[in-house]
Amino acid sequence: MKTDLKTTSEKLFSVLSEKKVTFGTAESCTGGLIAKTVTDLSGISEYYYGTVVSYSNSVKQNVLNVKEDTLKQYGAVSSCTAVQMAEGARDVLGCDYAVSTTGIAGPTGGTKEKPVGLVYIACAGKGKKTVVTENHFSGTRKEIREQATEKALNMLIEQIEK
Amino acid sequence: MKTDLKTTSEKLFSVLSEKKVTFGTAESCTGGLIAKTVTDLSGISEYYYGTVVSYSNSVKQNVLNVKEDTLKQYGAVSSCTAVQMAEGARDVLGCDYAVSTTGIAGPTGGTKEKPVGLVYIACAGKGKKTVVTENHFSGTRKEIREQATEKALNMLIEQIEK
Repeated sequence: MKTDLKTTSEKLFSVLSEKKVTFGTAESCTGGLIAKTVTDLSGISEYYYGTVVSYSNSVKQNVLNVKEDTLKQYGAVSSCTAVQMAEGARDVLGCDYAVSTTGIAGPTGGTKEKPVGLVYIACAGKGKKTVVTENHFSGTRKEIREQATEKALNMLIEQIEK
Repeated sequence: MKTDLKTTSEKLFSVLSEKKVTFGTAESCTGGLIAKTVTDLSGISEYYYGTVVSYSNSVKQNVLNVKEDTLKQYGAVSSCTAVQMAEGARDVLGCDYAVSTTGIAGPTGGTKEKPVGLVYIACAGKGKKTVVTENHFSGTRKEIREQATEKALNMLIEQIEK
């Protein structure tokens, strides 16, 4: 799957400017790539509040308020965790929307149940039902992270436009 | 100034593995580039807890515990803010070391007093005195962000090795 992060982030920028809403991110497997992609655009600071990259579970719990039970029962890579990360980021960062990613970027860390390329992405908007998708990306670590970033930006655009 | 983020992050990885310490980041002007750079390395999750990208002052205050007085008196781009961001990230993320960046990546946002390229970088280690540097980088937005990232990684390596 070919990605074009520059074009997608520019599209997001134009939607944000039109709707005058703010957003933030909570990134696990994308590890800051979403933040890096959107902050490549000068002027985005008017709409972008920031990100929490939660590589460790302690950060997921202590900063994003993901429940310990959720992590224990479903694991860090799960739709429940993705939802709580997005809602936690929206509330902690204090923005209108937040998008989250949690998955296995590889090349290590995959299992039969949770293979490399599995990524859950959630988008939480104030007063809207949080949406979450299960994705199966393929390719190198770099490609998987880029595909997850593009999907996250597109979900955000879709939710803002709704 | 030429940068080689891949080599620098690999050097950091080897120092982390040797010393068995953990770290996190608090990024403003680098906007997630440090997080993205270190998480390009598979296996870094053992040492890397995450980042808080604080593009807005509310995130600096509410998540990183930067004091409102500091932001008012010295501004977001100041050595005091950089120090509080690094110490806040270390404590909030719960890691051994944290490095922070705050500056003007440009091309917009510069003033006579705080020109494009001015970046403060701080590194806070548990039980060590927090160090902070004032840097004057030049080039495009991309180049300034890359130089700030490389400097931050090098400061972290230096503090861990001390």
